[in-house]
Amino acid sequence: MSNHPTADIGVIGLAVMGQNLVLNMNDRGFSVAVYNRTVSKVADFIAGPASGTSIEGANSLAELVAALKRPRRVMLMVKAGAPTDQTILDLIPLLEPGDIIIDGGNSNYHDTIRRTREVEAHGLRFIGTGVSGGEEGARTGPSIMPGGSPEAWPHVKHILQSVAAKVGGSSCCEWIGPNGAGHFVKMVHNGIEYGDMQIIAESYHIMKELLGLSNQEMYEVYARWNTGTLDSYLIQITRDILAYQDKKGESTLDTILDSAGQKGTGKWTAIAALDTGIPLTLIGEAVFARFLSSLTTERARAEKVLSGPPPAHKHDRTALVRDLHEAVYASKIMSYAQGYMLLRAAADTYDWPLNYGSIALMWRGGCIIRSAFLGKIKQAFDSEAGMESLLVAPYFSKALSEAQGAWRRTVATATMSGIPIPAISSALSFYDGYRRARGPANLIQAQRDYFGAHTYERLDHARGNFFHTDWTGSGGPVTAGSYQA
Amino acid sequence: MSNHPTADIGVIGLAVMGQNLVLNMNDRGFSVAVYNRTVSKVADFIAGPASGTSIEGANSLAELVAALKRPRRVMLMVKAGAPTDQTILDLIPLLEPGDIIIDGGNSNYHDTIRRTREVEAHGLRFIGTGVSGGEEGARTGPSIMPGGSPEAWPHVKHILQSVAAKVGGSSCCEWIGPNGAGHFVKMVHNGIEYGDMQIIAESYHIMKELLGLSNQEMYEVYARWNTGTLDSYLIQITRDILAYQDKKGESTLDTILDSAGQKGTGKWTAIAALDTGIPLTLIGEAVFARFLSSLTTERARAEKVLSGPPPAHKHDRTALVRDLHEAVYASKIMSYAQGYMLLRAAADTYDWPLNYGSIALMWRGGCIIRSAFLGKIKQAFDSEAGMESLLVAPYFSKALSEAQGAWRRTVATATMSGIPIPAISSALSFYDGYRRARGPANLIQAQRDYFGAHTYERLDHARGNFFHTDWTGSGGPVTAGSYQA
Repeated sequence: MSNHPTADIGVIGLAVMGQNLVLNMNDRGFSVAVYNRTVSKVADFIAGPASGTSIEGANSLAELVAALKRPRRVMLMVKAGAPTDQTILDLIPLLEPGDIIIDGGNSNYHDTIRRTREVEAHGLRFIGTGVSGGEEGARTGPSIMPGGSPEAWPHVKHILQSVAAKVGGSSCCEWIGPNGAGHFVKMVHNGIEYGDMQIIAESYHIMKELLGLSNQEMYEVYARWNTGTLDSYLIQITRDILAYQDKKGESTLDTILDSAGQKGTGKWTAIAALDTGIPLTLIGEAVFARFLSSLTTERARAEKVLSGPPPAHKHDRTALVRDLHEAVYASKIMSYAQGYMLLRAAADTYDWPLNYGSIALMWRGGCIIRSAFLGKIKQAFDSEAGMESLLVAPYFSKALSEAQGAWRRTVATATMSGIPIPAISSALSFYDGYRRARGPANLIQAQRDYFGAHTYERLDHARGNFFHTDWTGSGGPVTAGSYQA
Repeated sequence: MSNHPTADIGVIGLAVMGQNLVLNMNDRGFSVAVYNRTVSKVADFIAGPASGTSIEGANSLAELVAALKRPRRVMLMVKAGAPTDQTILDLIPLLEPGDIIIDGGNSNYHDTIRRTREVEAHGLRFIGTGVSGGEEGARTGPSIMPGGSPEAWPHVKHILQSVAAKVGGSSCCEWIGPNGAGHFVKMVHNGIEYGDMQIIAESYHIMKELLGLSNQEMYEVYARWNTGTLDSYLIQITRDILAYQDKKGESTLDTILDSAGQKGTGKWTAIAALDTGIPLTLIGEAVFARFLSSLTTERARAEKVLSGPPPAHKHDRTALVRDLHEAVYASKIMSYAQGYMLLRAAADTYDWPLNYGSIALMWRGGCIIRSAFLGKIKQAFDSEAGMESLLVAPYFSKALSEAQGAWRRTVATATMSGIPIPAISSALSFYDGYRRARGPANLIQAQRDYFGAHTYERLDHARGNFFHTDWTGSGGPVTAGSYQA
């Protein structure tokens, strides 16, 4: 280490994302100092991937801090939860007023709200930022979603916007909002990622099991899809995964156990939707589908007992694959519309001035859900910033109108053939529920009033007037009031 | 009030459930003292519904406590959350070691776990109990699900089992387990109630909108359904609601706004499932469907923009109603199977020795979800207590096998006709996912390893061995380790 501070930023945590982000910063001309709790990893990194660069290794937090220009910028790429809290606690006494702690981990937004408050109480500044793009994105340009102390932004903007992905000259990094806004947006990104992956998995399942397509044939389908409205990173890697063979010429995909892991951000997204009253059905189903996938032994036992439908007749492959494309596309529109509903609810709840078009642009490149589709979402918000729902934007309502016949046929065919399609069918039910002024919930309100005197509103009276009926003739006039069962 | 303690139990809170439970206790020969924070309600109750009984009114908490035999039993029927905490805080200094506080409100099980600890720390005993049956059940015999301090149970057992509903001579009240077990089971009950109500609402929607049945015709359908495998309180009240007319001879149901309220227990159930990794899809969809129903103005605007399918051809009413019965029944089986999966996960997480057959018996009578069906669930657990899933019980696997053709036709028809069926279709996708040893999640694992080096397990290696592929040829050997994005 040199004796006087020369580093633009310090990064703590040298797992894959940390390492790649550091190399990316170095490529962009920033001088970076690095530290890792298991200190041997620092030397390994400096002697390995970082050899020949000016990246400096530190053997302690104090050494790292000493290497930094002021205001000091320290970025954490460590495990979310307690390890992040501990690192922040360890850092605070080493820093001075005005210094900036940046948490680039997958932290829960509730934690980021709390940490912003705690760190600011020490005269320091805090940024909690989502970083998406995986291993490769971190190396070449991820999507970066920062929120936290607004005064910190001017001091980190040039670094973060420089290392982030670019789309049409714009950086996929922009200030999101105060305290937990950045991590909230990253969480919703991850939830949408769960949804996209589940939709693709369902299309794969239909093509594989119902149509009997080979991996090579499916490779060709996804390759074709990747040139149209579904053009996206996840379709692209699905294509490549289908083509990937090991040294023996066998498909690696076919050897992989069908038990999907998850690290909790999808679950957090679903919980945030439940907490804010937003019907985030598609992401919910995607999270639950991963849970179901993990019950491998239970499913194996069930297979011996539970029967499916009789074998399906021959399907027209070309027609069904064409329908499937529309079903995937329409389901994706529903999922993003639900995700934006959640963002809007969070903006209301936490008083975050979210810029929805800007968020679409940040997701447009660099991150896992990057796609041409997000460009269309950006355009929709550009033409009407206050848009209530993506579903009523002309581009998307027209797309849904055009896709719905094929979408319905896909759901019906998979249903009759016994292929599970929780996300695609849930998306369609949401569409059919959302597009009607009048649904069947009057019955639910009648039931609630019947058994619990919960009262109801009426079509022929203004909202806010509540009525109770003595349905049985034996109930009393007492309504549920404060007690509900 | 008399000068010496004569009351068997004190009840705090005189909203509809509290009043009816007190009258029920009085009917069973228990002497009850009552108190309400708004004290005028006490006098109103004593002079009104309680006139001619020996129920004693108290004008303060101290007066209530003074009226009670020892160990004192004080039951709270107040609003869950802060009001319950405040009442407990107010009570503690008035009570003596060995006295028992019973919370009969809809408390969150996390609160009950905490309160059991806090109340026990004062040498007192605590019971958190679910009480279900609504207005009418509380009056004539609810389902009661108590958990908390095990030493308290012998002191309250005779009262709670006496006021509870009876089925075949057994009381629908049995000890559930320590701390929050009772409220957890009640929460799952409520979640299942959400699911049952949503399934029924979907059947109503299909019959009303797709088949054009009149309320009278639907009354007849539900009346018939209520004599078979769907025999249940919720089907029965649906039948009666369809027949109910106001003084002008108009259907009350038709005047009710289709915006379903909820008090949070369905949401809690879904969150508990997300926290324990259980795919509780049907209840999740039911909760989300209520959220969607509440977006009345957004739906009205969407109706103007989003199109449905072309008008459907004529359907065979008799055949479709027959199919619909099977679809409702099969969906209900899936929902209860998922609910029991959640109970099992909670038993593991919290170390609760849950008796699943006993829980089915408690739900068999008195409560909102009471049904003949729960008798079948009780029988299934009686014949195999350690049963992994309801779905593999011979009675239910056979029922699903028989129902699935009609169930699939119902989903396909509603899908093609544009009727939303989020719960019924989600249940079928779950069935089709659960009954196969091999699903499509190998693709999700491949994607996660591709973009995030998250590793995967292989079919040709034992569980617990994790592999990483350098899919692009340009990634490194570093796996995600502690950082995940």
